[in-house]
Amino acid sequence: MASVNVGSVFSAEEPPTVLYVGQHETERSEPVTADLLRRAQDRGYDILTTPITTPTFQSRVLATLESHVQQLNASPAPGTVPLPIISPFTPKDSDLIPEDSNSSLIAVTSPWTDIGSPDPLIAHVSQQVFSLEVAYAAFCGISNVLVHGPISGQRTVRFARAVLEALGLGPYVQLHILMPMTGELEQDVSADGTHLAELARPEFAELIEEGEDEGEPDLYASWEMWNTIRTISLEVPRGLPPLSLQSRWYSEPVRLLMFPRTTFLRNGKGFPVLSKQHQQFLTHLLRLRFPPWALLSDVGRIPAEKTTASTSEPATEPTPAEAATARSRQESVQGPTQHLHYMRHLQQSQPSRPPIERFGLGYQDYMQSPLQPLTDNLESITYEVFEKDPAKYEWYERAVALALTDLRATLGQGRDIIVAVAGAGRGPLVTRVLQASRKTGVSVKCFAVEKNPNAHVLLQRHNAADPLWAGQVTVVKSDMRTWPGPLKPSGEIGKADILVSELLGSFADNELSPECLDGVQHVLYPDHGVNIPQSYSAHLTPIATPRLHSDLLTRASSDISMTVSEKWEIPYVVMLHQFDNLSTIPATPEKPRTPDVQQAWSFSHPISPDILTHARHRAGGTAEPGTPNGGDGTNDHNARSCTLRFACPDRGTCHGLAGYFETVLYSSPQPSNGNNGSPQTIELSTNPVTMDDKSKDMISWFPIFFPLKTPIYVPDGSEMEVTMWRQTDDRKVWYEWVVEVYVRVDSEVGGNKRMRVGMSELHSSRRNGCLM
Amino acid sequence: MASVNVGSVFSAEEPPTVLYVGQHETERSEPVTADLLRRAQDRGYDILTTPITTPTFQSRVLATLESHVQQLNASPAPGTVPLPIISPFTPKDSDLIPEDSNSSLIAVTSPWTDIGSPDPLIAHVSQQVFSLEVAYAAFCGISNVLVHGPISGQRTVRFARAVLEALGLGPYVQLHILMPMTGELEQDVSADGTHLAELARPEFAELIEEGEDEGEPDLYASWEMWNTIRTISLEVPRGLPPLSLQSRWYSEPVRLLMFPRTTFLRNGKGFPVLSKQHQQFLTHLLRLRFPPWALLSDVGRIPAEKTTASTSEPATEPTPAEAATARSRQESVQGPTQHLHYMRHLQQSQPSRPPIERFGLGYQDYMQSPLQPLTDNLESITYEVFEKDPAKYEWYERAVALALTDLRATLGQGRDIIVAVAGAGRGPLVTRVLQASRKTGVSVKCFAVEKNPNAHVLLQRHNAADPLWAGQVTVVKSDMRTWPGPLKPSGEIGKADILVSELLGSFADNELSPECLDGVQHVLYPDHGVNIPQSYSAHLTPIATPRLHSDLLTRASSDISMTVSEKWEIPYVVMLHQFDNLSTIPATPEKPRTPDVQQAWSFSHPISPDILTHARHRAGGTAEPGTPNGGDGTNDHNARSCTLRFACPDRGTCHGLAGYFETVLYSSPQPSNGNNGSPQTIELSTNPVTMDDKSKDMISWFPIFFPLKTPIYVPDGSEMEVTMWRQTDDRKVWYEWVVEVYVRVDSEVGGNKRMRVGMSELHSSRRNGCLM
Repeated sequence: MASVNVGSVFSAEEPPTVLYVGQHETERSEPVTADLLRRAQDRGYDILTTPITTPTFQSRVLATLESHVQQLNASPAPGTVPLPIISPFTPKDSDLIPEDSNSSLIAVTSPWTDIGSPDPLIAHVSQQVFSLEVAYAAFCGISNVLVHGPISGQRTVRFARAVLEALGLGPYVQLHILMPMTGELEQDVSADGTHLAELARPEFAELIEEGEDEGEPDLYASWEMWNTIRTISLEVPRGLPPLSLQSRWYSEPVRLLMFPRTTFLRNGKGFPVLSKQHQQFLTHLLRLRFPPWALLSDVGRIPAEKTTASTSEPATEPTPAEAATARSRQESVQGPTQHLHYMRHLQQSQPSRPPIERFGLGYQDYMQSPLQPLTDNLESITYEVFEKDPAKYEWYERAVALALTDLRATLGQGRDIIVAVAGAGRGPLVTRVLQASRKTGVSVKCFAVEKNPNAHVLLQRHNAADPLWAGQVTVVKSDMRTWPGPLKPSGEIGKADILVSELLGSFADNELSPECLDGVQHVLYPDHGVNIPQSYSAHLTPIATPRLHSDLLTRASSDISMTVSEKWEIPYVVMLHQFDNLSTIPATPEKPRTPDVQQAWSFSHPISPDILTHARHRAGGTAEPGTPNGGDGTNDHNARSCTLRFACPDRGTCHGLAGYFETVLYSSPQPSNGNNGSPQTIELSTNPVTMDDKSKDMISWFPIFFPLKTPIYVPDGSEMEVTMWRQTDDRKVWYEWVVEVYVRVDSEVGGNKRMRVGMSELHSSRRNGCLM
Repeated sequence: MASVNVGSVFSAEEPPTVLYVGQHETERSEPVTADLLRRAQDRGYDILTTPITTPTFQSRVLATLESHVQQLNASPAPGTVPLPIISPFTPKDSDLIPEDSNSSLIAVTSPWTDIGSPDPLIAHVSQQVFSLEVAYAAFCGISNVLVHGPISGQRTVRFARAVLEALGLGPYVQLHILMPMTGELEQDVSADGTHLAELARPEFAELIEEGEDEGEPDLYASWEMWNTIRTISLEVPRGLPPLSLQSRWYSEPVRLLMFPRTTFLRNGKGFPVLSKQHQQFLTHLLRLRFPPWALLSDVGRIPAEKTTASTSEPATEPTPAEAATARSRQESVQGPTQHLHYMRHLQQSQPSRPPIERFGLGYQDYMQSPLQPLTDNLESITYEVFEKDPAKYEWYERAVALALTDLRATLGQGRDIIVAVAGAGRGPLVTRVLQASRKTGVSVKCFAVEKNPNAHVLLQRHNAADPLWAGQVTVVKSDMRTWPGPLKPSGEIGKADILVSELLGSFADNELSPECLDGVQHVLYPDHGVNIPQSYSAHLTPIATPRLHSDLLTRASSDISMTVSEKWEIPYVVMLHQFDNLSTIPATPEKPRTPDVQQAWSFSHPISPDILTHARHRAGGTAEPGTPNGGDGTNDHNARSCTLRFACPDRGTCHGLAGYFETVLYSSPQPSNGNNGSPQTIELSTNPVTMDDKSKDMISWFPIFFPLKTPIYVPDGSEMEVTMWRQTDDRKVWYEWVVEVYVRVDSEVGGNKRMRVGMSELHSSRRNGCLM
């Protein structure tokens, strides 16, 4: 059973990459007018940034501040000088006026302010400037405002509070906080001007954050600031931080990517290009459901007059002599839009997406409740979507072929091998069984069992019309759990040698494969019968996914019968995209960095007949003399639990658990040279660590996501402990999960101690469990 | 202005202490029948505990388990032996039957089970026993069930999960988890029986919690387990843990106190008594709004026949010879109910409560929204309650007397001192001013200004009827902010020398004293005018208060106009009772352990006239040429903020901030020998650290509580950082608060690092701010 309820059909066509590119200058030489914007758009830019206020305004603010400080110094007693006030804008203070074209502008607040200052005077003046600016930009109809992030080493909560306050100034304004990926911003935000931060008085210095200058540079400090703030624009530096930190930023709602000129390299011909790493980072971000815009900063001014030939520039290859000259006179020779043209070139030459991403286009990070396969009947289109999987059915065919060969060797040539497909759907597994039979030369008698009356019609039609089926398949309309078994020509009920099914969900057992296979096991020969799959396991790892968390926060419950709180207590099937793994295994020369995905539990089939007998005795709480008995508990043997520990090297916020599965369809007991050297174990996997080795390009399953009601903060070098249960009663199956966070600290008295620093609630999907 | 909206009147009569006492035996020698209960109640016990199952049942479970382990050992393959099932009770398994008297019983689940075992076999068997027992007790009509807490060093989440599951078995059953105050339970819970925990298989040993056996014994481990579970019964050990840990337990909803026989000492006469420390701990708990019950464990069996003389036993003083014999044959000579009689004696001799507790009886931990003093008019009964404060008005009189003496010295004998009481209410401050005048011999002219038209009537009546007032008081009906000033006999508007007010709230400025006093400052002489109070400050400290947190969780919003989320974003006036301070300053030989209560900010009056002028210019966003101006901001100068750091020695959960205030009513500039050696600074304080020194027995103010939406875990040796704002606009005043938690860790690469491990949301009472 595949895992997702899609209506879309697998498409080979990929839509073109969308990329909005803007131009930014740290110090604009001319006002950003409708005319300048038109010229920029003629050149190929989509957007321009504009300062909100002029240098005249900055001078006025500084003069006000200086005069206040003089008054303070002259004042006899503290508390007698009123705080300075920045009076409203005059026309000299801002070049902006309301215009229709302003929707293509991003307004930039004054980078020389310091709204998070611990000095109340600086904070007071900065907040006034900031409020005046945001309110005026909103009044002029600009809906995107770029704000420089907090100054390094500053109390982030004060900055965050000031930004929150500003959000109230214009309900339609989107604030983008400009943050460096790590460390400090590369571009000097005000080369000539004075930073108000420098004017802060020393008596407030104690409020500056500590702990930054000890030990190694704190790569994650910038991310942590952002994590306190939660809306963003990201400056991409020339030297990218480690992949782990790139991946963290990737998981956040980045709306703007700022590329300073210094981020570009020069290729052999003197043209600006991005490094391979930068290209990969950009590609990664452009595959998001809502990709960020790109802002090119200080890459050349928009010329005053239109240059019609400009679009052909990148095609003109300079001679070596020209290139040498170019390197010495970069600005003029390269032309003002070379960076833009390079970005457009990247946009058009984006590599195509891997199959599962192409398949799931539009489904990135879209959460769906898992199917209720035992109570719902699927529609034909759903079957059709999954039948297109390029890997899954091929692997099933190999597994069946291997099992047929092995069984023929065990049972001899005396009779056909009896193969039952349990849950045949529209018949793709039946076709693969027949193909495996033809390829191996092992003759079979095939039974197709299906409970869905609508699919049953198609199965009969197939049997009559398909030349491979050729009327030899016995089609049975039945829930597999109540099917007596294959009818022999003699009229007796027989047994099957092989039982093939596809009942797995995104978390292996979450669509009740264990319960269904228990229910049909009576048709299988107890001694030599083979179940395909033979075993499967559930795997999980903790992740940071602000997108899914905020989607859940804002959504009403996904079902009107669910309470608001219940939406946090069900697992979701989702094509995880914009997320970060919190627990990773570092890269080695042989292997790239991978998430630490651990096995929660596993199931094997067939199970011991004693356990099935015992389970039947318990059904309905029966207590017969002489038999083991009890209350509810007929499905006790399919309960599981695990406690897993995940090392988390870098701090982050955990929003939930990502779940995957692996399954062994068939593992041959024969040594591998017995089968022409081809593999003897056929496996499927959605576990990102093993999927490429075991079943590359499989598209049938998206991962599963177990959310946390309250995100839990995970410090550097901590350990997450996940306890999870698969719970059962006589009617339902559900999951429960709880997460704890520990750090190791040196206690003052004793030695090294494992200390709990956080714990989630116990989550339970009992009320929305899967019905048997 | 006092802080609480009570309808109750200060009562000198204290109701008798309530204490339910029960008897517990770790191994009952006879079934707990209605007859035994009657005999115990005749002896003076209120309740009895009873095991739910018999030793026969324990043997049956052990036999089942042994037979299963034998099967496992004999089994060829893993996973082929069904899990053992405990079949339903037979009459031999339990002595309990449904009876009306069962409501006076506490049922005890089998202490030899181990529902939190990491071994799935032990957990499975234990959970079955536990479920059968709880369900049967519920069926028999027993509503209180005692459950032994998790075994030390065990995964608490599995135990907690099992208990949560059991809560579903009987909706009216209250589970009490028996925990030691620290370390292990003193009483050996099953001296003869076998603990299932001992049978757990070694392969599951890795799941045992680590970190306990390194360094010093972990006092708080038991509390931390409980913190994961959240319902409780507490065993009181012979050696009580430190006061800090006693205080932690005190803050939790302890429903039962279990006193093992070993907890009692023997006094000189051989009678069982509790140590002074134990008595204090008990007294503390008995003052809770819902005091716990006491269970005496193994203190002597209930005799088979009634002893009518039993109640007189403690009064009989044995001779020295008898006492010596008693010591050698304790059980029989002491009699079976000596411990009970001692408890009854303690119950009857409880010390009386301090004044504020007596005053607030029934208001412990009851949260109220603060008054809106500028928009609501108080009722007479509210005034009356606060006028009974034994300290507050006395201190005001001293402050006025001191100020009158000083002003007479400054101004000479030429004229009456003009005293204005702003917000006179029913006149208590006017009376004190007149008394201070009489006592010091400094003649005054007194003005009483009151906006409440109803109180105004009473003021006029007083002036006519009260011999002290004697018609000399000028009663003015006006909001103090619009009162022009004292009318001179000449008909001119004059100024006041002293302005007395009582506008403080529980957090000093939270009822807008700064704004009101700014508004009336124009009536005060600018050069020598005295404001009483002269200054005041807000103070806070982080606390653990599970009771208030769960009250807020379960209450609908306190006002129908409030959203569910807003109830977490307003401060509450509350007589804090069942709470624990998370940040404390250790005891020294000179001083007991005290909470670390830090000052947030302060206000002084009168303020600089420049600031008032400036504020007036800003009102309504006026911008006149040549004047400083701006948007909203007329009350900017009354905004405040602070960032405070609190060291937290022991781990805990922070549920919010407790707020207090201090105020200097008047501080004389004269040296203290100038006033007969009596104190020259008159202060009031609700800060628990200074209140006894500054204004003992004051009852007018309860503390304020700023809740946190999500409680934040505070590890051992961590630091909490609280950032708080008093925000203002032209219409309202409100508070904002955010809490962060840091620990110091040794980073692998660099040195010692301050690492954030938790952070609260930013809370804001803006929507429910105090209207100006």
